[in-house]
Amino acid sequence: MKMKGFGTIVHGESVGFIEKDIPEPGEFEALMEPVVIAPCTSDVHIAFEQGHNDARNHRILGHESVGRIVKLGAGCKEYKVGDIVVVPCTTPNWRTLEVQDGAYQHSGGLCQGMRIGTSQDGVMAEYYLVNDVEMNTAKIPEGVSLESALMVSDMMTTGFHGVELAGVEFGDNVVVIGTGPVGLMAIVAAKLRGAARIIAVGSRSRCVELAKQYGASDVVNYKDGDIYEQIMYLTGGKKVDRTVIAGGGTEQLPIAYKLTRPAGGIGDLVAADTPPRLNIDTADFCRFVAHHRLAGGLCPGGRRRAERLLGLIQYGRVDPSLMLTHKCYGLDGCKDSFEMMRNKTDELIKPIVYMNV
Amino acid sequence: MKMKGFGTIVHGESVGFIEKDIPEPGEFEALMEPVVIAPCTSDVHIAFEQGHNDARNHRILGHESVGRIVKLGAGCKEYKVGDIVVVPCTTPNWRTLEVQDGAYQHSGGLCQGMRIGTSQDGVMAEYYLVNDVEMNTAKIPEGVSLESALMVSDMMTTGFHGVELAGVEFGDNVVVIGTGPVGLMAIVAAKLRGAARIIAVGSRSRCVELAKQYGASDVVNYKDGDIYEQIMYLTGGKKVDRTVIAGGGTEQLPIAYKLTRPAGGIGDLVAADTPPRLNIDTADFCRFVAHHRLAGGLCPGGRRRAERLLGLIQYGRVDPSLMLTHKCYGLDGCKDSFEMMRNKTDELIKPIVYMNV
Amino acid sequence: MKMKGFGTIVHGESVGFIEKDIPEPGEFEALMEPVVIAPCTSDVHIAFEQGHNDARNHRILGHESVGRIVKLGAGCKEYKVGDIVVVPCTTPNWRTLEVQDGAYQHSGGLCQGMRIGTSQDGVMAEYYLVNDVEMNTAKIPEGVSLESALMVSDMMTTGFHGVELAGVEFGDNVVVIGTGPVGLMAIVAAKLRGAARIIAVGSRSRCVELAKQYGASDVVNYKDGDIYEQIMYLTGGKKVDRTVIAGGGTEQLPIAYKLTRPAGGIGDLVAADTPPRLNIDTADFCRFVAHHRLAGGLCPGGRRRAERLLGLIQYGRVDPSLMLTHKCYGLDGCKDSFEMMRNKTDELIKPIVYMNV
Amino acid sequence: MKMKGFGTIVHGESVGFIEKDIPEPGEFEALMEPVVIAPCTSDVHIAFEQGHNDARNHRILGHESVGRIVKLGAGCKEYKVGDIVVVPCTTPNWRTLEVQDGAYQHSGGLCQGMRIGTSQDGVMAEYYLVNDVEMNTAKIPEGVSLESALMVSDMMTTGFHGVELAGVEFGDNVVVIGTGPVGLMAIVAAKLRGAARIIAVGSRSRCVELAKQYGASDVVNYKDGDIYEQIMYLTGGKKVDRTVIAGGGTEQLPIAYKLTRPAGGIGDLVAADTPPRLNIDTADFCRFVAHHRLAGGLCPGGRRRAERLLGLIQYGRVDPSLMLTHKCYGLDGCKDSFEMMRNKTDELIKPIVYMNV
Repeated sequence: MKMKGFGTIVHGESVGFIEKDIPEPGEFEALMEPVVIAPCTSDVHIAFEQGHNDARNHRILGHESVGRIVKLGAGCKEYKVGDIVVVPCTTPNWRTLEVQDGAYQHSGGLCQGMRIGTSQDGVMAEYYLVNDVEMNTAKIPEGVSLESALMVSDMMTTGFHGVELAGVEFGDNVVVIGTGPVGLMAIVAAKLRGAARIIAVGSRSRCVELAKQYGASDVVNYKDGDIYEQIMYLTGGKKVDRTVIAGGGTEQLPIAYKLTRPAGGIGDLVAADTPPRLNIDTADFCRFVAHHRLAGGLCPGGRRRAERLLGLIQYGRVDPSLMLTHKCYGLDGCKDSFEMMRNKTDELIKPIVYMNV
Repeated sequence: MKMKGFGTIVHGESVGFIEKDIPEPGEFEALMEPVVIAPCTSDVHIAFEQGHNDARNHRILGHESVGRIVKLGAGCKEYKVGDIVVVPCTTPNWRTLEVQDGAYQHSGGLCQGMRIGTSQDGVMAEYYLVNDVEMNTAKIPEGVSLESALMVSDMMTTGFHGVELAGVEFGDNVVVIGTGPVGLMAIVAAKLRGAARIIAVGSRSRCVELAKQYGASDVVNYKDGDIYEQIMYLTGGKKVDRTVIAGGGTEQLPIAYKLTRPAGGIGDLVAADTPPRLNIDTADFCRFVAHHRLAGGLCPGGRRRAERLLGLIQYGRVDPSLMLTHKCYGLDGCKDSFEMMRNKTDELIKPIVYMNV
Repeated sequence: MKMKGFGTIVHGESVGFIEKDIPEPGEFEALMEPVVIAPCTSDVHIAFEQGHNDARNHRILGHESVGRIVKLGAGCKEYKVGDIVVVPCTTPNWRTLEVQDGAYQHSGGLCQGMRIGTSQDGVMAEYYLVNDVEMNTAKIPEGVSLESALMVSDMMTTGFHGVELAGVEFGDNVVVIGTGPVGLMAIVAAKLRGAARIIAVGSRSRCVELAKQYGASDVVNYKDGDIYEQIMYLTGGKKVDRTVIAGGGTEQLPIAYKLTRPAGGIGDLVAADTPPRLNIDTADFCRFVAHHRLAGGLCPGGRRRAERLLGLIQYGRVDPSLMLTHKCYGLDGCKDSFEMMRNKTDELIKPIVYMNV
Repeated sequence: MKMKGFGTIVHGESVGFIEKDIPEPGEFEALMEPVVIAPCTSDVHIAFEQGHNDARNHRILGHESVGRIVKLGAGCKEYKVGDIVVVPCTTPNWRTLEVQDGAYQHSGGLCQGMRIGTSQDGVMAEYYLVNDVEMNTAKIPEGVSLESALMVSDMMTTGFHGVELAGVEFGDNVVVIGTGPVGLMAIVAAKLRGAARIIAVGSRSRCVELAKQYGASDVVNYKDGDIYEQIMYLTGGKKVDRTVIAGGGTEQLPIAYKLTRPAGGIGDLVAADTPPRLNIDTADFCRFVAHHRLAGGLCPGGRRRAERLLGLIQYGRVDPSLMLTHKCYGLDGCKDSFEMMRNKTDELIKPIVYMNV
């Protein structure tokens, strides 16, 4: 049995529609059909950047989805065919030693907790597999829309992780660099973690508007001048407690160090650029003596993480569906939405693709 | 020079107006006149309960205030006479070994970081002293009302501490026992720390109403039956992630253990009763094997804490002034408001006393 | 095929030899034969105490072992028949939601991460099963004796956990209540976590001697008078930073609170007594306001934990085999050693039973 | 009244003996005479490097000392003239807002918690001042030699901090880069924090010998080839859990990232080079996605820190005096020992200067 999907044709060169065999679910796996999916900036990187882990030719793209279970492996006991679940982009193997070392995102190797749309075929297809489905996906509670649930897959868990990595505490002043969908979720997360002032750095108008609605106290446009200078002007020269890097490239790291007070925290959500070189003035790092804490990492996954984030939506703490500015439909919509991420307009935050609603 | 104040006449027996010498500020101290103050349930305990630390005869009561600086010690360099500042109820001596051990609330002895209205005369007076005023008080930022600022002194720092002690994380389901002003602030704090569902336990109608406005998803009335049973009914039998004890007495502790899942956290804001005996069924404690974490403690103080909480008000994250249900005026108002705390009506949350606005 | 084992005949009443079918390993399981095993005080509790989880009639006892793999489930890929591995007493199912909530000891329910010798048959037998053997057991590195490796199963992971729960830091003064084998391992662990002074509480002479060899600075005998008074005498009235409860019963908890300074930590390894009632004077708890942190819980398990503890032995940081004071042999030795744990003599620390070396 | 000292003549150019007024202690200060002191590699940097904070002409050098109190400010209540105390190199002002933000090392500005021998005159003199002497220095307990106590000032607190920053846990495999006296103390600290295997990186023979005595399992010589390759060879290709950078320059940072497993920790004790530029291949950083935690910072100070480290010596956990390979005497010895640090021989670990024993 064949199915159609949208993915790489030649990695690094071309994307398009491809045909593959419908996969068969293993013992703890599920075969899903996508209900709603969303494209991600990472899909563009995965398709076109050199050196990306596990990228290859004829790989179906897409890792953000809500799916309907079509077929279940024999080891699945709790879910049943027809169930609709959020599929986080990080779906680790829980039976690995990395889990026991507190690094389940890196189960089986660096970032190998993320498989869908990278080391296995993704969600921009008629069908896709999810590994360990009862450990890795969550049912959608009453009162949570498909649109909001979809944002749990990646945007929400990633943005919230930035705030966790930075270690935001009550009353902290926080900078969030980036106001794309991950940055927007980091802004909400900073508010929901107890930040006082939240200074966002962004430029596209619709993103800036939503940043304010989500809790940004101020928005600085990097096109208006040096970020550091602009923020010091706003704060009267006081460094902030925490910085989340949710946009830009590696060049944001020295800026984050410079913005953040001694013993403050930096959460990095941005993988290094290609080519991966960083030429920095360590004076910005306070010569590494200032007790800054820096941590970065692939977003959390797993069923409990998804349930917790869905809980935040269910109890009205956040409405991530406000980010969905554009609608597409069906497999053709996968391609359309992918192109939107390649050529971001001022009006775009995030597209949704309605597949099998 | 004499001044008038409201306090204990005979400790454990009677309160009333007393006259004392106006104190002289030491090197790093300030003499303050109260601008607005609030009475606290603790004032009633301090006045009437045996065994309370440092309580004694002829002690002026009151530890929640915004004050105006009248006279400054020679060591003060940044503040000036006339400045209006929030005075936290915890005003530790920062030059102690306990600070270096991470226990500044216990500088100089158990709970000795709280002095005003306990081991030294309080704020229900024409004047009062504040120790180490530039380390312990904070100026009120633009846009923050006197009423809101006043709530930083004790209610807000205490309620928020309960959530810190319990270790609330994103998406946690949290129980807050108590919907008095400390419980209400714990509810806001749980929301601002990323809780999903917040189940409050309370009964007085105005408190319950505000609990919902502040973020409680459900309110359970302990008069309607066993708390544990009611909450298990609401959750479909699932224990919660964290419990904050912000009301009731020590008998809440076994209930908190029973409500909280393995590896969950319990934050205790309630000092043990008099007489201080606890007769518990340790089965409720899961026989101490369930990796619960229990911590309790006197609220944080110091200037930075106050600045951080004021920041939360300034940037619109919380409006604690909604708790101020009753207004009193002047020294007589201190007495009136104290009596309100002794005889809490259904309509009372928290009174404010306007002194020298 | 039948096998023989030592276990309960009638739970709560009698123990003896029983016959059972040799079990068949499931997909990720192994059938083991014991190489060396040790009895535990818990075995006595499991056999005779009411209310113990999962205890029942005809249950083979014993949860501390080094075993040889006899037969492997089809899902096992790394281990092979004949391999000798340490089998920790905690062997959780890693595919559970509790793992995702940071409570793998409670996978599938309170303390259900411990199965061997409780909810499934134990190691005092000709054969026993180990679930998820490649996630839960560890090979013994070169230079580590069978005797030392055996102590990793329970005594070492438990004693070390007490120090983790108490949060010992560099230069802390630490009390360890109990000098049985768990207490002894907590003493080593306190030293290996950076404690300065370590005050042990114990009485049996051989234990006391080894306590000193393992790093106890002082040993207090509870038979010589009140523990609190004796320790305050030693410290000149200064409370300690951390207390580990590794012996005695629940009545040690108020003592631990009283011994520990504000913001200090208490790690509890002792499950509550039967009947599980605790009648305490909360004055000893400093009325719950002193920022003590209390945590207790079943010991950590899993392969990485075992590998880490084996690493400590391999690199010469600890020699747990010093605790093995008595030797027994074969199935009869299981019974003999069990009786030794029931009737502890002054000369006993821990017996070892050589089974199939 | 004049005194003599050894320090900079022209900063960046020349050092020698200078004459200064004997300083007068302020309210909480003490005038000390040095009993024993030690030179530090940092003294050489402070004297000769551009851009070092607060360095200047005619600055007396030296920040490691045990001193005798000669004169006390009026605010000192506990110490008396003649007392001999360890003077940590970090002597913060405890009445600052940075203390309340958890960054006392940066009281009053970046690294301004370290004053002696940098922003105020140092210990290579007939007399020197210590600020807030009762909060910042510690008496030497019985059984602790002057030589060992001296090592608490800087070497021990700094080396131990590296292990704290890296977050070493039981059974971790740890790399310590550098086997100078700070690296040696980091090796002891790793052992005392529960490390299993400790791989040190160093070359000078006497240091290497002591590294092994202090607990290093293996020593890798960077002169024998690439550090990363040598360590991967030793471990069979397994990354380590934690890395402490206690030697070399900023170029060690990418190596540390490469050596350390996902979710591992890196503690950096090495300030960036002059000129402070770092040109790195971020592939070594796993593109910042591997949940590494990086922290670096000036060493902890204060009386309690010193008391805790002295406790470790008193109770026999560490003997830092083994590092003292060379002896000098008097003011001339300050100069001699400074020159030794400039021209480190293979036989040198650390000199001590006996001043007024």
